[in-house]
Amino acid sequence: MAGAENGGSGSGSGSDLVLLDVFGSPYAQRVRIALAEKGLAYERAEEDLAAKSDLLRRSNPAHGGKVPVLLHAGRPVCESLIILEYLEEAFPATPPLLPADPYARARARFWAEYAGRAHHCGKRLWLRRDDGEAAEPEPEARAELLAVLRALDAELGGREFFGGEAFGFVDVAAAPFAAWFLTYERHGRFDVVEECPGLAAWAARCARRDSVAANVYPPEKVYQLVLEYRQWVLGPK
Amino acid sequence: MAGAENGGSGSGSGSDLVLLDVFGSPYAQRVRIALAEKGLAYERAEEDLAAKSDLLRRSNPAHGGKVPVLLHAGRPVCESLIILEYLEEAFPATPPLLPADPYARARARFWAEYAGRAHHCGKRLWLRRDDGEAAEPEPEARAELLAVLRALDAELGGREFFGGEAFGFVDVAAAPFAAWFLTYERHGRFDVVEECPGLAAWAARCARRDSVAANVYPPEKVYQLVLEYRQWVLGPK
Repeated sequence: MAGAENGGSGSGSGSDLVLLDVFGSPYAQRVRIALAEKGLAYERAEEDLAAKSDLLRRSNPAHGGKVPVLLHAGRPVCESLIILEYLEEAFPATPPLLPADPYARARARFWAEYAGRAHHCGKRLWLRRDDGEAAEPEPEARAELLAVLRALDAELGGREFFGGEAFGFVDVAAAPFAAWFLTYERHGRFDVVEECPGLAAWAARCARRDSVAANVYPPEKVYQLVLEYRQWVLGPK
Repeated sequence: MAGAENGGSGSGSGSDLVLLDVFGSPYAQRVRIALAEKGLAYERAEEDLAAKSDLLRRSNPAHGGKVPVLLHAGRPVCESLIILEYLEEAFPATPPLLPADPYARARARFWAEYAGRAHHCGKRLWLRRDDGEAAEPEPEARAELLAVLRALDAELGGREFFGGEAFGFVDVAAAPFAAWFLTYERHGRFDVVEECPGLAAWAARCARRDSVAANVYPPEKVYQLVLEYRQWVLGPK
């Protein structure tokens, strides 16, 4: 497969895993972080979203070839959180991300899904046809994003990780967005440390973790890429 | 709890279950169908979305008191598909909805989530500020809805149910929307039997199933309620 490279360092038990991927996609990052936490070896094939591979289109036709797609022995699994659940069930000997208790599992699934809301609210702040940072942030989007971050902060409740002492399912699902906090701050004109100190400390903790550091761009780079993407979508001012 | 009534007929093993509910919500219907399939007894408390109970607001604050919420021994579980997974895990002695094989489970999760797309596309057809059915349907929404229905039809692949011979996870998640097909047809000007004969036969099969018949309004009633809702949101023409 063109563009495939060895992306894992695990035991080889996952050597029939191929990830159709875009490095900067926070949803694809969830899967790479999970694969790293589980020590599963895999190949990754970087996709060009402007010219998706036939394999990607064939593997996720219902969603028009959306990344990430994980191929396991050639069979596609789509949607980041569904891939995480699949890894739990297909590789039961690897470190689990979900807790054992049914209620704790439901709670983790809820907050993992909820974490994606930050991304959608954030986009309404930074993808506007206006003067960019010079303009006042759109008040409703700003308020909603702050509400989402505060809800995550409250769920974290001052613990090390959403999984408690262990880095777990919600941490994997939310860690890619932690690298976007700087972008949210600059476009929303607020300070995450001030608004949500526990969540800010969690983000710093995630950034130091090997599985995250290897798979997520640093916040300043995310910010620059967002500016480029913004200009590409909206055109020059 | 005001408005609570006995809604189940099961073994009593689920008698500490309370569903905060709106009868017509397709997402709440998923949960009632699953509870019926599993034979779990529960109380339901019909909510008024214009005046949500404090209990509902407290139980799902992150989503502003969205239904359904299932309380189990007083602890809230939110989001319909997460509730379905919870029922699988918290009541392992009841008939399972998900298959056992990890890949089949991932596939079921994907299509269960995907089924909700029909609802979102459909809404773009029937919730327009125009002449309603007298107007030409919005071409993009119509095409997208047809694509969703065809994808579901292809996944069904002529089987009895998405679960094969057994009524399973995807069937529970998609059955409430089958009662909306008539509404989609009239607003989108197409014929589900003609476009997706297998899916149309599946919808008829679902409608005859006890768990569905008891918990989902008939298609004509859905259509009338949609017209009323439409008028309430958009105002008189």
